[in-house]
Amino acid sequence: MAEQGYQIGMVGLGVMGRNLLLNMADHGFSGMGYDTDQSKVQLLRHEAGERRIEGAASLPEFMGGLSSPRAIMMLVPAGPPVDAVIRALMPHLEPGDLLIDGGNSYFKDTELRAATLAERGVQFLGVGISGGENGARHGASLMPGGAREAYERVRPILEAVAARVPVVPSGLAVAAASTDAEAGLSPNGAAHDEAELCVAYMGPGGAGHYVKMVHNGIEYALMELIAESYDIMSRALGLTDEELEAVYRRWNEGELNSYLIEITANIFGKVDERTGKRLVDVILDQAGQKGTGKWTSQSAMDLGVPAPTVDAAVSMRDLSALKDEREQAAQILHGPQRAYRGERPRVLHQLHNALYVGMASAYAQGLALLRAASQSFHYDLKLEEVARIWRGGCIIRSAMLEPIRAAYSAQPDLPNLLLDQQLGWEVMARQPDLRAIIRSTVGLGISIPGLSAALAYFDGYRSAWLPANLIQAQRDYFGAHTYERIDEKGVFHTHWSED
Amino acid sequence: MAEQGYQIGMVGLGVMGRNLLLNMADHGFSGMGYDTDQSKVQLLRHEAGERRIEGAASLPEFMGGLSSPRAIMMLVPAGPPVDAVIRALMPHLEPGDLLIDGGNSYFKDTELRAATLAERGVQFLGVGISGGENGARHGASLMPGGAREAYERVRPILEAVAARVPVVPSGLAVAAASTDAEAGLSPNGAAHDEAELCVAYMGPGGAGHYVKMVHNGIEYALMELIAESYDIMSRALGLTDEELEAVYRRWNEGELNSYLIEITANIFGKVDERTGKRLVDVILDQAGQKGTGKWTSQSAMDLGVPAPTVDAAVSMRDLSALKDEREQAAQILHGPQRAYRGERPRVLHQLHNALYVGMASAYAQGLALLRAASQSFHYDLKLEEVARIWRGGCIIRSAMLEPIRAAYSAQPDLPNLLLDQQLGWEVMARQPDLRAIIRSTVGLGISIPGLSAALAYFDGYRSAWLPANLIQAQRDYFGAHTYERIDEKGVFHTHWSED
Repeated sequence: MAEQGYQIGMVGLGVMGRNLLLNMADHGFSGMGYDTDQSKVQLLRHEAGERRIEGAASLPEFMGGLSSPRAIMMLVPAGPPVDAVIRALMPHLEPGDLLIDGGNSYFKDTELRAATLAERGVQFLGVGISGGENGARHGASLMPGGAREAYERVRPILEAVAARVPVVPSGLAVAAASTDAEAGLSPNGAAHDEAELCVAYMGPGGAGHYVKMVHNGIEYALMELIAESYDIMSRALGLTDEELEAVYRRWNEGELNSYLIEITANIFGKVDERTGKRLVDVILDQAGQKGTGKWTSQSAMDLGVPAPTVDAAVSMRDLSALKDEREQAAQILHGPQRAYRGERPRVLHQLHNALYVGMASAYAQGLALLRAASQSFHYDLKLEEVARIWRGGCIIRSAMLEPIRAAYSAQPDLPNLLLDQQLGWEVMARQPDLRAIIRSTVGLGISIPGLSAALAYFDGYRSAWLPANLIQAQRDYFGAHTYERIDEKGVFHTHWSED
Repeated sequence: MAEQGYQIGMVGLGVMGRNLLLNMADHGFSGMGYDTDQSKVQLLRHEAGERRIEGAASLPEFMGGLSSPRAIMMLVPAGPPVDAVIRALMPHLEPGDLLIDGGNSYFKDTELRAATLAERGVQFLGVGISGGENGARHGASLMPGGAREAYERVRPILEAVAARVPVVPSGLAVAAASTDAEAGLSPNGAAHDEAELCVAYMGPGGAGHYVKMVHNGIEYALMELIAESYDIMSRALGLTDEELEAVYRRWNEGELNSYLIEITANIFGKVDERTGKRLVDVILDQAGQKGTGKWTSQSAMDLGVPAPTVDAAVSMRDLSALKDEREQAAQILHGPQRAYRGERPRVLHQLHNALYVGMASAYAQGLALLRAASQSFHYDLKLEEVARIWRGGCIIRSAMLEPIRAAYSAQPDLPNLLLDQQLGWEVMARQPDLRAIIRSTVGLGISIPGLSAALAYFDGYRSAWLPANLIQAQRDYFGAHTYERIDEKGVFHTHWSED
């Protein structure tokens, strides 16, 4: 076996890297792994069992064990670690080799690295991979970007480890899409003749990592919205963890069906072994972040695309981290002390619909951003493909993505999902419930920036007139920034004050 | 006069540059101006009158006309134009010369330029200047950053053109601070013995431009909040422009007293010469931006500081720019069709107080960001000084800045203005009105992301517990990102699912 070399190399043997190797081997691809931490190499050997997987004790052994030209995937933390791996590999790389960055790298870094490696004749792909440990092991959503010929070289391997969703008869939504990737995959990948793969070539350069970044931005927004629904049900309605588990379980069976709602139900069911309490209640309320949500907001601002629900998710994670200040503030800043008025079933129904609008708004903002990025960076993204591969394997998979895919199938250049007749109508029908939830919650003193941003986005987007004329007047008044008129083409400036 | 050379040079003779030269000359400093556009040089000569100001026809004439070592201020658009000017000046610069960038440069650019010029022995200051045309002419707020000795060299000139506010007896607010800069300055700068200058050394490197950037971020937030108040009064309450003018005029006489409220009143009073209508009504509702608000949000995200009201202002400008999409959406996405319930005087009072809370929140977010930036970038900012020099001359000057200054005087390291006893109390007392406004407006379908973000920030900040424990559980569930516990130190990871 070693004579003809392993088909794929993996640098970085954390759980993601190991699981991907196991997944690849289960689909018939031999792999060799390397990590500077030899204990992870040992772990890989242990987990490999009878599979055609080897762990290398050194970089030369690793590079020598791969079939040529080599295909090497890196799964290391974004930023300097990626460059460190590339530097370490560089002396061993030969023209024709292909390097694949499967981490959450910043898309501009990916483009720089591709250019640097191209000078050495080495191909480079930036592949966004979503699905966490479980997706890596049993089927992930993969967003590859770079030169198309490089993608074609490793396409069979990427397709092998991709999640699969059942082919949907045209016009029907897949309520089960979110759980299919886990439930429907047998280790040998058989019996999937009627399945669609959650991988597709995204575009050149950093397109794959850009799409993954926006995926994560949407993920931040969805998580913030779910957290707000939890806060409302817990602090305002007084639901217990058992009741919360049941609500999210029920929601997951309907139109909110999604991976994040599903795991939220599971989380509220999880008991802490140390205390016997529900584990969620002993977890500190300070959210961390790795930066991809922040990058999404920052890039949206650079491209002039509003993404307020993502922004709110980012700033609320930052606010949550200020735990000491919050505890201090709680001592001196008091709010209203009222209980929720309204019957619980009715409020839960409103909250369900409010969450639907929030989720739709998060997808709408993310996909509108992708459309703008595709134009600015010449990615030529197919938004239908993006929605299609997000339906399974990834963290933001949900039943909602099938109608979203259908919307882009009908109108590939749709400026915003809210302009799709069906989705627009679904959101419109549920807006009264979002308004009701915000009205009540605002009176209770519970912070709901994500739901508020979703409504402000909806109300702003559907407003033919906005008070930005005043902002332009102010800018012209104090800074001579000029303005346009509604009744005449041109650029105008007024001397507003007499002095 | 030419024998001993002009005391200050100005490159970039737009209205800001010309007005600053006139202001300097009125205070006894001779100046020479240069611009590649000779019509602006002509304009300067024309405006100069009898003052000791000369316009140079060429760069050699300009450089030769200045006393040595030279002090040259640039007032050109941020970005490549600044580098272009530096490149053009470079061959003529001598060790000991001082270059001052008075534009809205990105703070990291300022630090790079300072380092590059230092290699040639040329000093560099990045000076944020706010106040627009009028401030430049009659007294601006100046935020100088760079080497302190460079600041000391031009301090007399910067002080001469700075706005002045009356010295405040300890403990008293200055209700008139916002208009003082215009009303109280005589051209020769006399009769200001009892005035404080709106200029102070901010810190090293890009500190001056950073402070100016955050000033502009706050400015974006205030403008968005005022625009939302306009939208509510106009579309929900049906106020005419005449009535709007009167409301803002009245508000400017009380605790909302500020430059932006003042000019808003003036704007609603301005009649369009072409149509006879109020000018504001013929201005197109698409807001432009030059990037400083966006930079503020992006930097806040980089530093992990929540600035949601600024974020909302940035994304709403972006949303306003999508006029075509909004007109399309307005055709298909309908909202509630209700009129405001409640008596007008009562609602106006609530709106006044809502705006107060929004404004306080904008200052709180901006100053908390400055505190974090000061720590990260070693600026050693004195927030009391920042608040002090913002009280006059600049766009965000307001009566509120005197209590803010006092708060930092009492507690220089105050983490957040909301933790100041007095300001916290003022905000707390007005929160019911902000809640009432949001509750009503949300039911009317008017977009109010700025006011909503201000409340979410307040409610989030004063919440000892936030639902971020769920977010940490989710992150650990799908990405093994680990979490902390409330009952034990350490970093924990759980295998959440059975599969």
